[in-house]
Amino acid sequence: MSQLGQLYGLGIGPGDPELLTLKAYRILTSVPVIAYPTSEKGKSVARDIVAEFIRSEQLEIPLPLPFSTENSAQPYYDLAAEKLAECLIQGQSVAVLCEGDPMLYGTFMYLFERLAPQFPTIVVPGISSTLASAAILGVPLTYRNDVLSIIPATLPENHLRDRLAQIDAAVIIKLGKHFLKTRTILAELGLLAQSLYIEQVSYPNQRIIPITEVDPATVPYWSLIVIPSQQSGSEFA
Amino acid sequence: MSQLGQLYGLGIGPGDPELLTLKAYRILTSVPVIAYPTSEKGKSVARDIVAEFIRSEQLEIPLPLPFSTENSAQPYYDLAAEKLAECLIQGQSVAVLCEGDPMLYGTFMYLFERLAPQFPTIVVPGISSTLASAAILGVPLTYRNDVLSIIPATLPENHLRDRLAQIDAAVIIKLGKHFLKTRTILAELGLLAQSLYIEQVSYPNQRIIPITEVDPATVPYWSLIVIPSQQSGSEFA
Repeated sequence: MSQLGQLYGLGIGPGDPELLTLKAYRILTSVPVIAYPTSEKGKSVARDIVAEFIRSEQLEIPLPLPFSTENSAQPYYDLAAEKLAECLIQGQSVAVLCEGDPMLYGTFMYLFERLAPQFPTIVVPGISSTLASAAILGVPLTYRNDVLSIIPATLPENHLRDRLAQIDAAVIIKLGKHFLKTRTILAELGLLAQSLYIEQVSYPNQRIIPITEVDPATVPYWSLIVIPSQQSGSEFA
Repeated sequence: MSQLGQLYGLGIGPGDPELLTLKAYRILTSVPVIAYPTSEKGKSVARDIVAEFIRSEQLEIPLPLPFSTENSAQPYYDLAAEKLAECLIQGQSVAVLCEGDPMLYGTFMYLFERLAPQFPTIVVPGISSTLASAAILGVPLTYRNDVLSIIPATLPENHLRDRLAQIDAAVIIKLGKHFLKTRTILAELGLLAQSLYIEQVSYPNQRIIPITEVDPATVPYWSLIVIPSQQSGSEFA
C-alpha cells in the first residue's frame, strides 16, 4: 500500500505576494499539486496572488466554488474534496491556496472538515487582511487590556449595532453592499471620526479613502473598516 | 542635508523563523541597523527568533524595556526612540523586530508614536500568535457571520466574564497568572469543553495540553486559549 499524500492548507496572505511566509513559499514551490478555489467563471484570486511562484511542472487543480450563498455550496465542496482525495490516495501531496489565513472565515475550512479526518494535514497560518490593515494604515490597533473584535458587516442591523456599541477596537469585514448600513451605525454611535476605510488591502489597486467620502455603490466585498483603540499608548507607557 | 533613514516595524511572527514573511525577510537581511526590545537582563525573544538571519556586519541596537507594569515605561521608550532617531537622522535605515504583528498589543506601537511623525515609516504585518494558534491547533475558528473576539485575560474578572458570555469565537491571550480565573469563568459559562489550550505557539517547545489538565502554577504569559465557533461549517456549506 502506498503512503498517503500530505494535505496543506496554505495561508498566502492578503494580496501582496511578498506577504507569503517563508514556510508557505517553501511548500508552494516544492509540492507536486496546487489547488485553489475559482469562481464559476474560472477566475482565481488566490492563484493570481502567487502566479509568479508556480512552476510549469506542477499540477494545478481548480476548484469551482460558488461565491453567492443563494444555493447550497455543499455539493461543490463534496466534489472539490473528492478531487483532492484522488491525489492524496495516490500519495501526491496537495497544497490548497487560501487567501489570508486558512482558519479565519476561509473556504479551506470546508475542505479541512472533509479531508483532515482521513489524510495527514498541515495548516500554515497566513497574514490576515483584518490585522494587516492596521499595519498598512499605520495605526496601532490594541493596547494592554483592549479587546479586539473582528465583525462581519453581514450581521443583521440590530446585532451589528449591539456589537459595535461595545468595542474597544474593531475591524469590520465583508462590507460590500453592507457599507451604508455600517457607516450609518458608526455615525449614530459617534465612532465615525476614528473609523478608517481601506479596500483591496496590500494589492496594487489598494485604496485608502476618508470614510465620509466613500461612495456606497462602489464598495467591494474585500474592503475593511478599522477602528483603532482610543487609549493613548503614551498615556500609560 | 542628508536624507533621513527609513524606520521599519517588522512583524516577525509568533516564534518559528519560517513564519516570517518574504517581505520581512528581505528587509531584515538588507537593512544596516536592527533594533529589538530586551529584558532588563538583556534577553531578547525577538532577536532569538531571527538569529540565524542576522549578518555580522549589521549594527544591532538592544532596547531595554521593562516587562512589568509596576513602573512607568515612558522613560524607557523615550530613550529607545532617541537611540533610533540618532541613526535615522544620519540616514541609516533601522528595522525594529516585533514578535507577532507590530500593531497588535506590540511594544513597537510606543516607538511608532514617538518616531513616525518625524521619520518615514513602513510597518510590515506579521503572523500573530492569536490567529496562528487556530491553524496550528487545526481548528476552523470563524464561519460566515461569526464575530471573533481577542480578549486579554488581564481584564478584571467581571469584565472578562461579561466579554466571554457573548462570544461566537474567541482567543484569550496574556494568560500567565490569570489562567485559573479564566478557566473558572469558562467552566461557569459552559465553555470549557470547547476551549483549547496552547503555549509557546510555533516554538520548538510548543505545548498543547487539555485545558482541564493545565497546572495553573506553570502557565506562561505566552499562552493562549482558543474557543472556536460552534457553528458547523458543513451544516450550511
